[in-house]
Amino acid sequence: MNRRRRVFEGRSKVLYEGPEPGTLIQHFKDDIPAGTDKKSRTIDGKGILNSRICEYLYKRLGDIGIPNHFLKRLNMREQLIQEVEIIPIGVTVRNVSAGRFSERLGIEEGTTLPRSILEYTYKSGDLDDPLVTEEHITAFGWANPQELDEIMALSLRINDFLSGLFLGVGIRLVDFKIEFGRFYENEIMRIILADEISPDCCRLWDVRTNNKLDKDLSGKNLNELVEAYHEVARRLGILFENGPSKTQGPVLVKND
Amino acid sequence: MNRRRRVFEGRSKVLYEGPEPGTLIQHFKDDIPAGTDKKSRTIDGKGILNSRICEYLYKRLGDIGIPNHFLKRLNMREQLIQEVEIIPIGVTVRNVSAGRFSERLGIEEGTTLPRSILEYTYKSGDLDDPLVTEEHITAFGWANPQELDEIMALSLRINDFLSGLFLGVGIRLVDFKIEFGRFYENEIMRIILADEISPDCCRLWDVRTNNKLDKDLSGKNLNELVEAYHEVARRLGILFENGPSKTQGPVLVKND
Repeated sequence: MNRRRRVFEGRSKVLYEGPEPGTLIQHFKDDIPAGTDKKSRTIDGKGILNSRICEYLYKRLGDIGIPNHFLKRLNMREQLIQEVEIIPIGVTVRNVSAGRFSERLGIEEGTTLPRSILEYTYKSGDLDDPLVTEEHITAFGWANPQELDEIMALSLRINDFLSGLFLGVGIRLVDFKIEFGRFYENEIMRIILADEISPDCCRLWDVRTNNKLDKDLSGKNLNELVEAYHEVARRLGILFENGPSKTQGPVLVKND
Repeated sequence: MNRRRRVFEGRSKVLYEGPEPGTLIQHFKDDIPAGTDKKSRTIDGKGILNSRICEYLYKRLGDIGIPNHFLKRLNMREQLIQEVEIIPIGVTVRNVSAGRFSERLGIEEGTTLPRSILEYTYKSGDLDDPLVTEEHITAFGWANPQELDEIMALSLRINDFLSGLFLGVGIRLVDFKIEFGRFYENEIMRIILADEISPDCCRLWDVRTNNKLDKDLSGKNLNELVEAYHEVARRLGILFENGPSKTQGPVLVKND
């Protein structure tokens, strides 16, 4: 394992060089999500759950024609992915006001927005991922207008599908953050979904109780957080009905 | 009831004049779906189930910003709806090959299509709703190119959302047929979703077993059909968990 070349390490993931040129290995870590005070704490099994949830969502998005970087599962916490040229923009899609958005605009948390709102942030840990506009993105050349149009169209499709999917399992998709990359094949460039979609980068509220099933629990008891992530996986049909074994880590369904 | 003016009667629905100008009452009948041999047979309670399923789907589609004609529930089988100028085109969205499409193109039923395919039919009972192209539609003025673009965009959004929603409850959305109308408000015309979405006009297959949960069961034992419609409503959370009472008809959840 140590001989693999590490390409990138973030809070929740490590990227290693893949076995073939143009591929990478995406490794999901157990560290608690970014944006919390409790530095360097980990939660046993979170990476395994996120790896499986992300895989499931990317496969289903692939089924409806949303191109993405997922190639195949390697093990419980590692995926083979396409290497892409990451566009340094985080795209947040918001359906309901929450978190920083509520604070920034003075809109009460839980308010349904008049329509889904897209926000862009510039990916920079040093700058704490500042909010940017299309003006900034195109002026600094982070993406050109055609790329941004494609990113917007894909983001809205992803939002429609995931809103439906989560509603089907009794979960309100409040907001989520995604990233895109440029993928070159036969001299042709395509924008494809990259990075991850997991409860680490979504807000997921139970439809009936409004209980949080996401990263926002990391400020509280961390057992609650991993239990919530289990719940998301269970509802999506990824875990066995009888739930995870507390001692052995999550029990995953073998077939897809 | 008999004093109401009947505006339209089809196989599965009757439209009556509404209480206010610009409104109609949509009444869901118990007759078995069109396209079957067994003429004039009815299934107790089908109209009630379809009314509730349609209401639920239209409300959730409204939540994501898909404009539609639903205003409010009046009773178990009647809804108050906006009166629209119906565009005489049925839009079929297909994700998986089935039925006439499979026959027409020689593609085995159950084949996942390379991408979602839209088909248009001209609404004409006498002509048995023939397949038409954009050329026919715009040449005969049934809709203009701008309207057709809007219809296509809305249809694809509806497909993304409903594909996710049904997948969340373990159902594959194979195909479905919808209709649109022109709605005039303050001199501005908008294209809005009209008619119904229910198992009468969808193909819904169980994800694991591929069992049909839709109108295609009407060729078989009709008890199976109503049981399947119940199952769809139950999975969407519209019916109580313990299922419908066989003697009293469906037990509907009061609140939304």
